[in-house]
Amino acid sequence: MNVLPKLLDRIVAPDGAAGLQAQRALDQLTKPPGSLGRLEELARGLSEMSGRFPFQARRCVIFTLAADHGVVAEGVSAYPQIVTAQMVENFLQGGAAVNVLARHVGAPVVVADLGVASMVPGRPGLVSRKIGPGTRNMATGPAMTREEALAAIEVGIGLVDAERGNGLDVIGTGEMGIGNTTAASAVVAALTGAPAAAVTGTGTGVDDEGRLRKIAVITRALAVNRPQPADGVDVLAKVGGFEIAGLCGVILAGAAWRIPVILDGFIAGAAAMVAVRLKPDAGHYLIASHRSTESGHNYVLNALGLEPYLDLQMRLGEGTGSALCIGLAKAATKILGEMATFKSAGVTERSL
Amino acid sequence: MNVLPKLLDRIVAPDGAAGLQAQRALDQLTKPPGSLGRLEELARGLSEMSGRFPFQARRCVIFTLAADHGVVAEGVSAYPQIVTAQMVENFLQGGAAVNVLARHVGAPVVVADLGVASMVPGRPGLVSRKIGPGTRNMATGPAMTREEALAAIEVGIGLVDAERGNGLDVIGTGEMGIGNTTAASAVVAALTGAPAAAVTGTGTGVDDEGRLRKIAVITRALAVNRPQPADGVDVLAKVGGFEIAGLCGVILAGAAWRIPVILDGFIAGAAAMVAVRLKPDAGHYLIASHRSTESGHNYVLNALGLEPYLDLQMRLGEGTGSALCIGLAKAATKILGEMATFKSAGVTERSL
Repeated sequence: MNVLPKLLDRIVAPDGAAGLQAQRALDQLTKPPGSLGRLEELARGLSEMSGRFPFQARRCVIFTLAADHGVVAEGVSAYPQIVTAQMVENFLQGGAAVNVLARHVGAPVVVADLGVASMVPGRPGLVSRKIGPGTRNMATGPAMTREEALAAIEVGIGLVDAERGNGLDVIGTGEMGIGNTTAASAVVAALTGAPAAAVTGTGTGVDDEGRLRKIAVITRALAVNRPQPADGVDVLAKVGGFEIAGLCGVILAGAAWRIPVILDGFIAGAAAMVAVRLKPDAGHYLIASHRSTESGHNYVLNALGLEPYLDLQMRLGEGTGSALCIGLAKAATKILGEMATFKSAGVTERSL
Repeated sequence: MNVLPKLLDRIVAPDGAAGLQAQRALDQLTKPPGSLGRLEELARGLSEMSGRFPFQARRCVIFTLAADHGVVAEGVSAYPQIVTAQMVENFLQGGAAVNVLARHVGAPVVVADLGVASMVPGRPGLVSRKIGPGTRNMATGPAMTREEALAAIEVGIGLVDAERGNGLDVIGTGEMGIGNTTAASAVVAALTGAPAAAVTGTGTGVDDEGRLRKIAVITRALAVNRPQPADGVDVLAKVGGFEIAGLCGVILAGAAWRIPVILDGFIAGAAAMVAVRLKPDAGHYLIASHRSTESGHNYVLNALGLEPYLDLQMRLGEGTGSALCIGLAKAATKILGEMATFKSAGVTERSL
């Protein structure tokens, strides 16, 4: 049980040296300085986070963690719980949105079951690390025990460890779990003190009435469980989810090994907020892929101090935003790796 | 000389049938309806524009047109005129930003010389279609004759014609020309009646003084030449540029042959405004890739009624924004082509 404390000890703020090298290289390329805007920021950030210059985004892996949520008993989702398992099957078949977008950018997807209620272990391609058959209903008591939360975090850490041996340049985060925007909203409300209504959206698409029900359920869960905002693990255990805790572990492992972590949307963002609560320096290794339409996401981005690279009005999760951002990360890296310099191309520098 | 009128006659608003088919297909995919946001909008738009369902973005070509501008004599650019030719060489060597990003998305780049002052024709890989050795200084008289403007438009049309035979699913626009933000600002001011100051930015990076000089030069050019806003060709001839006119031709040819046209940044946008002035229905075939930091770009986007897909604080041109957006267009197309449906994957549809 001392995997987590040891890992947290490893996490330190990056020194800026590799980032500065990247910036110096960017300014010698055949373009007005800064004219590629945030693509340059991304190129520099990847070097700074990884401590590597040149940085290459050869192997970018999306970790899509799945689990079920007892809180669905309260009628918080537009889809029945069985959809979590069905979508995991879809991931394994390669037919989900994250599969298509991950293939598009050349990123493998690691699909892990941290607690899908109806999923039988042993599917080819599935990493089975079930903590339990879904969380318990947080509206009536804690979603899980503290031990379960820690175990789920360690599963996430282990997933990264298993991939590090194959080379792992960039981590993409993703998730699947019917009911998990309710858990994520509860986590964000608990950590920030924001009212449930401010951080609760329509998830997969509930109507106004459904959203009010979500808000009431989250308010109840917070009152019943009284998660301690200073204690990230307590928040995860009481109102989180297995996949959210797992993603927290993935994110912390990325930070510990200086592997840049691309956050998908709202749920990955909630996991990142817990990670940063456990170790503030983990925040230096985060990249926000896109701005979700889920209303609580702005709270998450503000809390993390991140400005997303994309705003495509997406709200699907799974790692779809991560995949698109991996495309940008590869582009940014190629700018540094493949562009000519003023000197090499014999282009005159600015005269004014 | 009746190439242009014939082409304009071909341009009509798309019927919505293929777009509706795409929308229907999108709603059967394993995701909450609309949850991929603007990626779905893009998938639908590509079908609607092309009239094809399924639409495939197999061959996406970026047309990067280069020319020089007599107005550089007024000191409007941070770089000397020779850089246009040097950057064209860089394009041909594959070392410029547009080459890197185009390779990243698998798009060939057609590099055409419409009037680079110092470029000797006959470079391998270069399409030489010189109208003249750069335009004349618009601050003292018309940048070109009406015949030259029409010839440049026809060059653009011809570039698309030459590629259509190889299959051309999506057109990306790009340009290079020291001084061409000054010309583009003048075009936008002339077409919209906006004051020069409102549509003039810092281009490749002039300082405040340089920007004021640009504004004064544009104001003078408009006063000296009195371009007629209702007559797009007159505006191009008096205050435009060969590459801007050529892009206008590229855009009109795309619209005529129902090939979706991705606009790069400010300069491609100015060319599109002329195209729409010549034939309003051409506007149905336009996709705005990104929001440039060049201050006049918002005027262009508002005038065209377009919302860009990316906002990465870029201002480089060349077709760099088009390249990134081609990546998104391919992703959007693959969503429709590769994702499972609720039926095929056996996923339960929404219950609420």
